[in-house]
Amino acid sequence: MATVEDIAVSAAINILTAIAFLLAFAVLRIQPVNDRVYHSKWYISGDRRSTRARSGNVVGKFVNLNFWTYLTFLNWIPQALRMSQAEIIKHAGLDSAVYLRIYILGLKIFGPWTILAPLILIPVNLSGNIIRNLTNAKEIISNEIDSLSISNIEDGSQRFWVHISLAYLLSVWTCLMLYHEYSKVAFIRLHFLASQDRRVEQFSVLVTNVPSISSHSISESVEHFFKMNHSDHYLSHQVVYNANKFSKLAKKRDRHQNWLDYYERKFEKTNRRPYTQKGFLGICGKRVDAIDYYKDIIGDLEKKMVSERQRILKDSKSIIPAAFVTFDSRWGASVCAQTQQSKNPTRWLTDWAPEPRDVYWENLSISLVSHGLRRVVISVLVFLLVFFYMIPISIVQSLANLEGLEKVAPFLQPVIDLKFIKSFLQGFIPGLALKIFLFILPTVLMWMSKFEGYTSLSLLERRTARKYYYFMLVNVFLGSIVTGTVLEQLYSFIHQPPTQIPKTIGLSIPMKATFFITYIMVDGWAGIASEILRLRSLIIYQFKNMFIVKTERDRENAMHPGSIGLHETLPTLQLYFLLGLVYAIVTPVLLPFVIVFFAFAYLVYRHQIINVYDQEYESAGAFWPHVHCRIIYSLLISQLILLGILSTKKAANSTPVLTPLPFLTLLFHMYCKKRFEPAFRKYPLEEAVEKDAMEHASEPNLNLRAFLADAYLHPIFRSFQDVESAETRVDKSQSESHVVALPSSPRHELNLASPPQHVYHYEMEPSSLYYNPYH
Amino acid sequence: MATVEDIAVSAAINILTAIAFLLAFAVLRIQPVNDRVYHSKWYISGDRRSTRARSGNVVGKFVNLNFWTYLTFLNWIPQALRMSQAEIIKHAGLDSAVYLRIYILGLKIFGPWTILAPLILIPVNLSGNIIRNLTNAKEIISNEIDSLSISNIEDGSQRFWVHISLAYLLSVWTCLMLYHEYSKVAFIRLHFLASQDRRVEQFSVLVTNVPSISSHSISESVEHFFKMNHSDHYLSHQVVYNANKFSKLAKKRDRHQNWLDYYERKFEKTNRRPYTQKGFLGICGKRVDAIDYYKDIIGDLEKKMVSERQRILKDSKSIIPAAFVTFDSRWGASVCAQTQQSKNPTRWLTDWAPEPRDVYWENLSISLVSHGLRRVVISVLVFLLVFFYMIPISIVQSLANLEGLEKVAPFLQPVIDLKFIKSFLQGFIPGLALKIFLFILPTVLMWMSKFEGYTSLSLLERRTARKYYYFMLVNVFLGSIVTGTVLEQLYSFIHQPPTQIPKTIGLSIPMKATFFITYIMVDGWAGIASEILRLRSLIIYQFKNMFIVKTERDRENAMHPGSIGLHETLPTLQLYFLLGLVYAIVTPVLLPFVIVFFAFAYLVYRHQIINVYDQEYESAGAFWPHVHCRIIYSLLISQLILLGILSTKKAANSTPVLTPLPFLTLLFHMYCKKRFEPAFRKYPLEEAVEKDAMEHASEPNLNLRAFLADAYLHPIFRSFQDVESAETRVDKSQSESHVVALPSSPRHELNLASPPQHVYHYEMEPSSLYYNPYH
Repeated sequence: MATVEDIAVSAAINILTAIAFLLAFAVLRIQPVNDRVYHSKWYISGDRRSTRARSGNVVGKFVNLNFWTYLTFLNWIPQALRMSQAEIIKHAGLDSAVYLRIYILGLKIFGPWTILAPLILIPVNLSGNIIRNLTNAKEIISNEIDSLSISNIEDGSQRFWVHISLAYLLSVWTCLMLYHEYSKVAFIRLHFLASQDRRVEQFSVLVTNVPSISSHSISESVEHFFKMNHSDHYLSHQVVYNANKFSKLAKKRDRHQNWLDYYERKFEKTNRRPYTQKGFLGICGKRVDAIDYYKDIIGDLEKKMVSERQRILKDSKSIIPAAFVTFDSRWGASVCAQTQQSKNPTRWLTDWAPEPRDVYWENLSISLVSHGLRRVVISVLVFLLVFFYMIPISIVQSLANLEGLEKVAPFLQPVIDLKFIKSFLQGFIPGLALKIFLFILPTVLMWMSKFEGYTSLSLLERRTARKYYYFMLVNVFLGSIVTGTVLEQLYSFIHQPPTQIPKTIGLSIPMKATFFITYIMVDGWAGIASEILRLRSLIIYQFKNMFIVKTERDRENAMHPGSIGLHETLPTLQLYFLLGLVYAIVTPVLLPFVIVFFAFAYLVYRHQIINVYDQEYESAGAFWPHVHCRIIYSLLISQLILLGILSTKKAANSTPVLTPLPFLTLLFHMYCKKRFEPAFRKYPLEEAVEKDAMEHASEPNLNLRAFLADAYLHPIFRSFQDVESAETRVDKSQSESHVVALPSSPRHELNLASPPQHVYHYEMEPSSLYYNPYH
Repeated sequence: MATVEDIAVSAAINILTAIAFLLAFAVLRIQPVNDRVYHSKWYISGDRRSTRARSGNVVGKFVNLNFWTYLTFLNWIPQALRMSQAEIIKHAGLDSAVYLRIYILGLKIFGPWTILAPLILIPVNLSGNIIRNLTNAKEIISNEIDSLSISNIEDGSQRFWVHISLAYLLSVWTCLMLYHEYSKVAFIRLHFLASQDRRVEQFSVLVTNVPSISSHSISESVEHFFKMNHSDHYLSHQVVYNANKFSKLAKKRDRHQNWLDYYERKFEKTNRRPYTQKGFLGICGKRVDAIDYYKDIIGDLEKKMVSERQRILKDSKSIIPAAFVTFDSRWGASVCAQTQQSKNPTRWLTDWAPEPRDVYWENLSISLVSHGLRRVVISVLVFLLVFFYMIPISIVQSLANLEGLEKVAPFLQPVIDLKFIKSFLQGFIPGLALKIFLFILPTVLMWMSKFEGYTSLSLLERRTARKYYYFMLVNVFLGSIVTGTVLEQLYSFIHQPPTQIPKTIGLSIPMKATFFITYIMVDGWAGIASEILRLRSLIIYQFKNMFIVKTERDRENAMHPGSIGLHETLPTLQLYFLLGLVYAIVTPVLLPFVIVFFAFAYLVYRHQIINVYDQEYESAGAFWPHVHCRIIYSLLISQLILLGILSTKKAANSTPVLTPLPFLTLLFHMYCKKRFEPAFRKYPLEEAVEKDAMEHASEPNLNLRAFLADAYLHPIFRSFQDVESAETRVDKSQSESHVVALPSSPRHELNLASPPQHVYHYEMEPSSLYYNPYH
């Protein structure tokens, strides 16, 4: 077990790491050459243009020579705090604003508690002396942190009444904050939706599982069905094409385009024709002129793309059995989305259309049965992943348990016995090992969600977040508590009566506090500091900048900041709520670490949302019910754990008092669900009628059909349609960037819609093609 | 433990009881005096009139003198079987027809199994010899039945593969039958709904939780809200009055009316003015003329009722915040029922209107929050009831365990040791004790459901059925298995390692087969025979007939057959599915008893539905999803129990093969839910549009407003409105029944709507007042 010195060493390491990251950030941020990395959102919104043009000096284009700015390197913090919530909503969307509120919620819940704990809980816990006795008896190796926790109280002590009252107080306080926040978020959401301009998704419904009738095309079926069943309000519909092959071609084309750009740039610099080899990876096969070679390949691919596009348009088989149906009023769309259409409930399924950016086109054709089967398969896989991923983690952690390591590798003993190394290993390794394991996971889980067949990016992110949360709960939280104990005490578990097991678990939870403190410091302090540095994006951007960027527009495309990644950040965040709530009563010394995380992460993400991340879609805070729900689960878990601890502490007269608490919490949850969740899932007719009437009064001659005509056009069409209008924009941007473009080359025509650096995202968010950062 | 002889004795007793009941029924049924009891449905439908008028003989009016009919006393069976399903639907409604299908489903599931078991399972089980060994070792007292069960197979035997394959076969077969039945019932339901005539509930929506605005009345609010949000389809609405006080007065009046009738009849017979006393129960206080006294009281009450009625109509506070809103098309109603209306999801809640007969008026005013709290309170109460009702049952059962009884009351030993008494006690008492406990329960559970606040009778019955099922599952099934064992082996449970517990439970399930066989015979054989006899109804009817019936109409009212009582019969029925499925693999000897029950009960209930019960409402088989769901649960329970048994049997190589089965069953359930349940919960727009169009084509000038005008008028109004039209009907019936009525008395005017014998049901189904058996 780690001692207070171990924690101090770990804290020092992590704080120094965080400071190093922050300093590096402060220096890198003000270099003009990195400006696009740290202010990408402003470039995308068009409020910031290349700073290189402004500075006359050649060096000044790349390095910041104004030394005053180095002295004010921390001014990103007041800058980040200056923007109001309304401005953030306008600048980065409601999702981002609601996301930031989660951190504030964390501070609100745990803030008062961090003040209360030293006043009430710690004196009470210190007044016990069980840990001292145990340490003397050498029964369990323990430390100073444990003597501040509930384990220090003697069995059956009257002092447990303090913990029980505080457990009630904590639950009431948490629920109060949650209720307040839920009603606030619901209000903001409704207000946001009501004050929004006219948006296509308000008039549209996504219909899936369209049955195929041999005599009719999908398009005819859809038109006939909705003309029949929504005769008064049906306006038009847009079919969906299966463009997966086209997007593969585009991807391949863009990979080759990057090589072409690279060789052209090389040629410009060296003025010598570059050569390459035709074979594998350009290192074997016939030697050819690189520029001509890639131009040929790209030409071929583009021809294929044109014919593929024509095939898609002509072949009725490339129309998938789903469509976006638009209505002449919000009322009509709202009605269609909420009702059952067909006698066969597995056909003609209607639901709200996601906003065009949010559609995940690849999954629209998946039928209900297939969707169900896929969910089952993925559930099994997630179960396996969640429960068997534990094994490698527990091995690493048992190695980091130095007593175990010494046994496994006795030759390491002299090294391990060095005090500093020992502290380092015990304080740093367990958290780091876990973090590495977690790094590749979100991608795998996102792939699983995509396979399941959800039809919008927001839903995909929410579902992935759920899987990730289960994973974190079992592996990071339970795994750290139980597996560690199991490896230590497996032998005694088997050979002792079953009543001993809850006692051991109850004891191990407070004892794991030190582990979670180091985890919070590694993941929550140093990790968040590395978030603001954006080292990976920086390297990729500068690499592209060096080799393939030729025009200013290429540079724009080289920096795609991505979105905030709710599927990854939400579960991580929710784990801190869990840790805070569990240890708020058991070992309140952990709370300051959680508070520092919430405050620091709030600052960092506020900065990132304002300056870096680009919103992929707007779900108007649709993820809030999940956040609420999981904080409630955390609260329930904390209550059950406390019950477990108390029951092992033989507090027989006080424990039953705690039993109603989980039930009351569940009741509160059910009430909130009934009261607020419909605001996130449904669109009340009252609201629809109001907005329809307002619009009708203000714009009586509105041509809604024209407004909705191309709303849900498949990206494949948009990429061709936009050519003309985009061309003029390109010309305009050329006049500013003074770079020769090739307006007439066929490559350009297509590339407009799918710039090379975007292609990586093509499969994920093809819709971003026409919402990309061009303007 | 009961031996085969005990079972034989029990079987003999129960078969004799059943035959006695059947003989009594056969004789009583053909007596003209009882005709109304055994053919009430025909009187209600108007196809049968009083037989007394036909027979000239005075004795013949009361006793059947035609001896031929005594010889053909079993002809109710072919009569019951003659009617086709379509005729039953027409005669007794779809609910009744679907209810009968459950018995057929039972026969379909267990029929092939009863043939398969003697061929495969019993030889396999007999080939083991563990029971013989155990009996020799006196470790557990067992019997011949057990040697036919799975307990007879040695641990780790390869013979368990037979059981596992058969478990798969049983599950597949059951699911196949369930799927087939679900799709059939869904089809029948949709067909029934489509072929129905125009019905008011198709155009109506029940809106609850209407917010009260001080400046508007409820009626104005409703009109304004729906005119605003469903402008194209809103037609009208009907407010609901709080008439609870009125119904109390009517109840009181009718109680006194019964006394008045009694004394008037007495006066007619004896020609002497009867006297009564004014005080408590007519046995103390001042002596008065009974007829005058009751006439006075009734006069007073009727004056009060008139003024109460006026108060209700005038006072806006007597309008409750709920209303029936009617639309100009099925489409409009369907849309309104399926969508969220208000921004605040706890207000303006809309749902399908139950058909007028089905409305439970008393609960319409309960708000959402109150409804939620009531459900919580009742959940806790049901939990307590389910889990602590066990205690008295287990005491009775442990008494019936004769070894225990001898210890408690050693003086009974000589009596108990008589072989016949012993067999009787062991075979009969445990089942009977349980049955008595269960007798009062449905009423309590129905009261609980009413308190919860459901707004229709059909929903009340379904909810009560659910509660009752939980009760049966825990107390009858688990209670009989576990409690019995616990009382026997409590001591050893505490003092043995935990791995022993599942073994003991696994062993006790096959051993309880004999108990359940006697239970089936008492409850399922003799119980069903007593159902056809209707002894309670017979006595009540003849009692009324003797003392208070004056006119033929009074006689009609004296026999209210009631409905089939789904809340009571469904869970009972489902218990047999559970028993059949659990023991189909474990102890297949139990199956023939289950089969006999299903076949016999099918005959009896077919007869009762055709001849006796009157349908209270038509839910078009809305209870089927529950039936399906609970059979699936039974299947799951049976699979888990088999898993438990096998794991204790050390069949380590074969048990894992069984593990996927529960998951596959759950998958099947989820699929069925998705595929069929919407047909029972929603009304697809496609269907609505079709019917609207058909109706529009056939009746272009239909005045829908007039058709819907009084559809959901509160019974209190109907009782006054009907007076004139009913008056004429009464005159007509007088000419047939040759009885002097009092057409002008104020009593009659009110009584028309709430005849005395119906008043008992007033609180339960006030709507039956205008659907009562008058025509």
